[in-house]
Amino acid sequence: MTEYSPDLLDPMRAPSRAGVLRAAAKISEILAPTPLLPLEVDGRTIWCKAECLQPIGAFKIRGGWHRLTDLTDQQRALGVVGVSSGNHAQGVAWAAKRLGVSAIIVMPSDAPKAKLEATRALGTKTILYDRMTESRDAIAAAITAETGRTLVHAFGDPWVIEGQGSAGIEADAQMRRAAGHGIDRIIACCGGGGLSAGLALACPDAAVTLVEPEGWDDVTRSLAKGSICAVENPPPTACDALQTLSTYPINFAVLQARGVTGVAVSEAELRHAQRLAFARLRLVVEPGGAVALAAALAGKVALTDATMITLSGGNVDAVAYARVIAGED
Amino acid sequence: MTEYSPDLLDPMRAPSRAGVLRAAAKISEILAPTPLLPLEVDGRTIWCKAECLQPIGAFKIRGGWHRLTDLTDQQRALGVVGVSSGNHAQGVAWAAKRLGVSAIIVMPSDAPKAKLEATRALGTKTILYDRMTESRDAIAAAITAETGRTLVHAFGDPWVIEGQGSAGIEADAQMRRAAGHGIDRIIACCGGGGLSAGLALACPDAAVTLVEPEGWDDVTRSLAKGSICAVENPPPTACDALQTLSTYPINFAVLQARGVTGVAVSEAELRHAQRLAFARLRLVVEPGGAVALAAALAGKVALTDATMITLSGGNVDAVAYARVIAGED
Repeated sequence: MTEYSPDLLDPMRAPSRAGVLRAAAKISEILAPTPLLPLEVDGRTIWCKAECLQPIGAFKIRGGWHRLTDLTDQQRALGVVGVSSGNHAQGVAWAAKRLGVSAIIVMPSDAPKAKLEATRALGTKTILYDRMTESRDAIAAAITAETGRTLVHAFGDPWVIEGQGSAGIEADAQMRRAAGHGIDRIIACCGGGGLSAGLALACPDAAVTLVEPEGWDDVTRSLAKGSICAVENPPPTACDALQTLSTYPINFAVLQARGVTGVAVSEAELRHAQRLAFARLRLVVEPGGAVALAAALAGKVALTDATMITLSGGNVDAVAYARVIAGED
Repeated sequence: MTEYSPDLLDPMRAPSRAGVLRAAAKISEILAPTPLLPLEVDGRTIWCKAECLQPIGAFKIRGGWHRLTDLTDQQRALGVVGVSSGNHAQGVAWAAKRLGVSAIIVMPSDAPKAKLEATRALGTKTILYDRMTESRDAIAAAITAETGRTLVHAFGDPWVIEGQGSAGIEADAQMRRAAGHGIDRIIACCGGGGLSAGLALACPDAAVTLVEPEGWDDVTRSLAKGSICAVENPPPTACDALQTLSTYPINFAVLQARGVTGVAVSEAELRHAQRLAFARLRLVVEPGGAVALAAALAGKVALTDATMITLSGGNVDAVAYARVIAGED
């Protein structure tokens, strides 16, 4: 049983490496490690953490599980509310179903059909909102105020950050077994910065680069500028999972303290990465899940033989994916 | 170092469970286990061995590695010759490159381009033949007679059978860790019977069902009849990896002794399985690699919660795969 120190009940507490290690231990009891697959790029072997092979098809199962297993009995009884473009929704829904906790998920109305259906199939109630005109955070805040449900934010939450970081603990151990050394460089997909902040905590000796789609690189610009700024007039992107308008102070603080920097990739670069993951790794990777590989392939980050990249999700629309694979897009 | 007992030098020796265990130990030193992924089918959780995630995209790397690491110094110096529709070719080529052994592979001229190119990319010489008018075994025999190279047959070879069986040793250990019990039923893709014979040796307490494409079910019919018969007037099939005309006595003896039976699946059933592996497991599975899952989904084999199925390969033609995924085929 978790003992509830005052600190652990504080949703504004800072996430910690100790928390990441605790999350990794809990997750290892319930989920087999996803494979860390070697891939030769420009004569180097880089290591791909295949989080698209999680039961829900994305790393978000980690944060969901760490958060929901740390609820108090009273919080469990009242249930949770999540906000998500689809993968976090499934992570929270998966954990909620397994733990017998009621969950409501606020999702954008243009979320991929596969993600909406998979979330509902886990027995969760979904509330849709318009991504461009409504605030998902305001909707979720109204639900928590009215029902007493605990908010499980998609990235701006210490448990969620720590949970996602458990992928780094796993990958570092896998690289040590396979190659005899730990991770010295991480290239991570970034929407709001939950995964990248978690990995930065998990692997304190690794250089961390986060990757965003072009025009959605608010976290990259925030880190360069030294303060949080938002996306402005963002272009269309296939990365439904990475369309966050700005990061949160809790994520930014971790990323800034660790000296994390970011790069952006084009839509063509990420399609190329999806095709390479298909042909060389036999993995289905969604657009947002392919941006770290895209940055590596495009030469936007210097690679080492101890580089870990995240293939963070594989929940795609079949027709759109088929077009990418056939090279029509 | 391997000690060469007279028995171990005999290409007609019977494969054994001890040999499978020895292969598994050798393979675990060089390859991380492929994941054993849970999948809910008709209210049961079955376990999918994702061999499509091997570095060459198929389980054939196992038999190639076990065979080539057991060559004597003289055999290594003279090199090997393999016959293969593509995946065994890459298995032998991968092992040969790693061990510095010369390899020639005899491949059908209609092998998928991706398989031909991947084999050549590993530095191996390929010789093409016409699948319908020429005998690959005769071509390979002529090469071995002329050059003294060791033949590494795609399925009719004790080392190859034992090597493929190592997947069963791995999967049984993984199921015990994840579910607390070992494998009691195996559903395996079958071309010539190398994998199914190896798994039957690996897991002596499991019921084994092999799966072939409709019209190519010579092993199924051979087992029912009690003697080896060949495919007659076979229809077109997408399963380039399973177009063997008949099994070999060395495979048949193992399968018959273990009471293995077979079933056949239609082309539509295997496309359905490819689509399900794509959507639910985020795995790219080639037609021949999907037949075991197809049989499970079609209700052709009674499932248990301790059923292991093979997803044996993922080397597909991109355009053909895109058509299947988009539901156009």
